Amino acid sequence: MRTFKITVGYDGTDFAGWQIQPRQTTIQGMLERALVKLTGERVPVTGSGRTDSGVHALAQVASFQTPNWRASAAELGRAMNVHLPATIVVLHCADAPDNFHAIRDAIGKRYRYQLQLGGIRSVFDFRYRWRVKGVTHLEAIEEACGRFVGTKDFASFQGAGSPRRTTIRTIKACEFIRELPSDMPLGLHGERISIEIESDGFLYNMVRNIVGTLVEIGKGKQSPTWVDEVFVAKDRDAAGPTAPPQGLFLKRVDYPDSCGVSF
Amino acid sequence: MRTFKITVGYDGTDFAGWQIQPRQTTIQGMLERALVKLTGERVPVTGSGRTDSGVHALAQVASFQTPNWRASAAELGRAMNVHLPATIVVLHCADAPDNFHAIRDAIGKRYRYQLQLGGIRSVFDFRYRWRVKGVTHLEAIEEACGRFVGTKDFASFQGAGSPRRTTIRTIKACEFIRELPSDMPLGLHGERISIEIESDGFLYNMVRNIVGTLVEIGKGKQSPTWVDEVFVAKDRDAAGPTAPPQGLFLKRVDYPDSCGVSF
Repeated sequence: MRTFKITVGYDGTDFAGWQIQPRQTTIQGMLERALVKLTGERVPVTGSGRTDSGVHALAQVASFQTPNWRASAAELGRAMNVHLPATIVVLHCADAPDNFHAIRDAIGKRYRYQLQLGGIRSVFDFRYRWRVKGVTHLEAIEEACGRFVGTKDFASFQGAGSPRRTTIRTIKACEFIRELPSDMPLGLHGERISIEIESDGFLYNMVRNIVGTLVEIGKGKQSPTWVDEVFVAKDRDAAGPTAPPQGLFLKRVDYPDSCGVSF
Repeated sequence: MRTFKITVGYDGTDFAGWQIQPRQTTIQGMLERALVKLTGERVPVTGSGRTDSGVHALAQVASFQTPNWRASAAELGRAMNVHLPATIVVLHCADAPDNFHAIRDAIGKRYRYQLQLGGIRSVFDFRYRWRVKGVTHLEAIEEACGRFVGTKDFASFQGAGSPRRTTIRTIKACEFIRELPSDMPLGLHGERISIEIESDGFLYNMVRNIVGTLVEIGKGKQSPTWVDEVFVAKDRDAAGPTAPPQGLFLKRVDYPDSCGVSF
């Protein structure tokens, strides 16, 4: 038996999310379909976490085990790519220690959320960005971002349906990024910003709920200090709405050096 | 009768090009379908030029005439966008002089061609970039670009099927652009470069044939001075192969001030 770690990129637009589901096209399903062709057996693939329909990955990580591959791990990665659609790619494939497990061993993740502030819809960005109107208080968003950093109870930012043992998480970074203007005449598609959040773990919809909360602040409906009130409430209804999926990218998954895997 | 000038962006991936064709989904066809719904009549739309299947536009220009629109031009643009798919957008709609004609009046265009040099395929760029292997002589490409500038006979760079009265054109700019690296770990998707070409007019497939020629030079198969030999040959077979459509973007169309239109 060999254990592999793969790093996978995908455009989530046309998939029903990561997780295998009957009669749905999913990322996990496509990866397992490629592995059946290459190994002759069903090989369950474990992702570092699920992503929802429409959510993208710059570098998702997954692990699996099979005795039926004799060539190098790099060759397995290339062979998988032959059997994957253009919207899924294995970026890296490496042998991993027998006990490596993509969910259990993950110690941190970074997500990126992309927004377009007002302007006309873009034919190139609509799959990758949330277009919101009326967001003009950018300094307020930047200030509010700082209020998410630290070890806190994120109960107010947990989506329904996937409760966890504890809702306490440590956010290491919550960065506000003004992106370069697009190639278009200035202002046509509005300003482009991103929020990047790094944490030791994320609750269900946590990034999208944080972004929805930041957008309320950016619209001037709430001040940055409102974030502190939302934390205290420990109530999902206290926070802003859930931002839509297409702006969200899983950017990185981190493992400890002791796992013997790196990317 | 009112004459309108529209500026249109589109992702050409899923269209059979600009021009209306029976039983095919085209950009012109979708624009005319929107205008039928809004004006109650068939309104022929004239583009500044056709683009092939898979070719994109940051700002294509088109003109049309209709007596059946009473509100402002800006409102017509917004109304058209309601009836267009997410991959086509009217960026600007303006009243134009009665005699304005998007093909006849155009005095110049700028195209952009995007490449990825080697590396793994990207799930986000495959629709918008030509991935080529073995291109390492970037200074040679840059030097060769300069040899296209000026008033020359581009017969060797004219694709078959759409012969023009004269093959002499004036290229005002042929720019080699090193793009910013992507967000991914360095080198994974290779370097990203673009070629931007501005001319008073383009022959069929001219940009794609110039880019295919530049790629031969970038691979070290030919030196930059080869460009001069290709010009002298006045023979399509003397130049490099035609670059694929997905890297090509129509970036801008220029009209003289005397047309009374601007964007």
